[in-house]
Amino acid sequence: MLSKNNIKLIKSLAQQKNRAETGLFVVEGDKIVSELLASEFPVRHIYCTQKWEHHLIGSSVAYTLITDQELERISQQKSPNQVLAVAEILDYQFSSPEIPNDFLVLLDDVQDPGNLGTFLRVCNWYGFNQVFCSENTVDCFNPKVIQASMGAIFRVKVFYRDLESLIREYRESFTLPICGAMLEGIPVHKFDFSEGGLIILGNESRGISEEVRSMLTHRITIPSYPAEKRDMESLNVATAGAIILHEIRRSQSQ
Amino acid sequence: MLSKNNIKLIKSLAQQKNRAETGLFVVEGDKIVSELLASEFPVRHIYCTQKWEHHLIGSSVAYTLITDQELERISQQKSPNQVLAVAEILDYQFSSPEIPNDFLVLLDDVQDPGNLGTFLRVCNWYGFNQVFCSENTVDCFNPKVIQASMGAIFRVKVFYRDLESLIREYRESFTLPICGAMLEGIPVHKFDFSEGGLIILGNESRGISEEVRSMLTHRITIPSYPAEKRDMESLNVATAGAIILHEIRRSQSQ
Repeated sequence: MLSKNNIKLIKSLAQQKNRAETGLFVVEGDKIVSELLASEFPVRHIYCTQKWEHHLIGSSVAYTLITDQELERISQQKSPNQVLAVAEILDYQFSSPEIPNDFLVLLDDVQDPGNLGTFLRVCNWYGFNQVFCSENTVDCFNPKVIQASMGAIFRVKVFYRDLESLIREYRESFTLPICGAMLEGIPVHKFDFSEGGLIILGNESRGISEEVRSMLTHRITIPSYPAEKRDMESLNVATAGAIILHEIRRSQSQ
Repeated sequence: MLSKNNIKLIKSLAQQKNRAETGLFVVEGDKIVSELLASEFPVRHIYCTQKWEHHLIGSSVAYTLITDQELERISQQKSPNQVLAVAEILDYQFSSPEIPNDFLVLLDDVQDPGNLGTFLRVCNWYGFNQVFCSENTVDCFNPKVIQASMGAIFRVKVFYRDLESLIREYRESFTLPICGAMLEGIPVHKFDFSEGGLIILGNESRGISEEVRSMLTHRITIPSYPAEKRDMESLNVATAGAIILHEIRRSQSQ
């Protein structure tokens, strides 16, 4: 049985301000909740249908059995899938990258939750397990980000920071390349990634902000084919990011 | 003013069977409708708000001015954007690739409209302007595919074919590589793409079907970092496809 207060709390977590206030977020669906349970994130409560209950055998997580109709009432999904969890947002600490001279990934005002989620999945694939986002980037605990990340949200730490001051601090300690993904620049496969540095991806329509752009040391581009054609939309930020991270790992494996 | 019949027709085009029956599809929003008007697709009718009418100056396309409320009634979008067009599905013909020994791209049962749309945008970026889809791949005139393609749907021809018979025919004329994107295979950056051939991407959860898999001559993989980790979801089909098409063009530019 679901109490009115629980329904109200769960629904309220669709809003970023309520997640910030309570320190809680919602995870939905068999696959991603299973990943949540295997992660370091503390699980506050699970609401599941009887069909899913066996996943909790041997677990000490508090849970409530609910009907499909009740699940529909609290779910943000079009087709709710057996289970919804309320979990606690972790207060992560930044840790030095495992690879010396590795790149740090920065996102400047990415707005679309699907793009952020997909890109986190890409970061996880390529072993970039810490990502810095500008303060106006979409919240990584937005339900759509979590869905699109396919669980990568539990393995990639996301930090929200003012990028200008972050880059300024970085420059005080390092003299490494500060690279931005742009429409005009050095073709990504011709850039030497061996030193490490920062790699920055911008907003879906405006690209990298002017302030951050002025701090770049290198502009990197993903060449289209043929190179000169411009009658089309550029790649989306998750796809462009994937190609850059692929090129970084490719150059390191040689 | 919108007639009841028009409302009924437009709404019916959300369903694939009605698109197939009428040969019509719907395009929404300022940007993509502008791309439609610049394309070869015949436009049957445009429904727009007064604010958008100036885009039609000098055009002979039939149109009806509607209110925002009327647009909301016929739109499939959460936030309808000024204009909705009904256009005719083109009966394209396959044309020989412009690049000798270029790759042909085949999609085996891609189900998610967002993935197909995003991947068409990628194909357009890399100049792969003809794509073959298995008959069970999501319809490319699905409104969500069109939205995600950001207009690439008007520049990339999509053919629906039985892939097994297509590959059989191909083998009768060519002895080129038939490559599938798989979780285990040759790292994509180590494969020699110079001969051309077929590149096949599979379904989001099942990958390439068994029948098609048995026809592959090469399996290609996108290495994760570290290579051996397997605690995560693979890249999605649009992202994986982007990296492979990037590598093909990269190898051709050297």
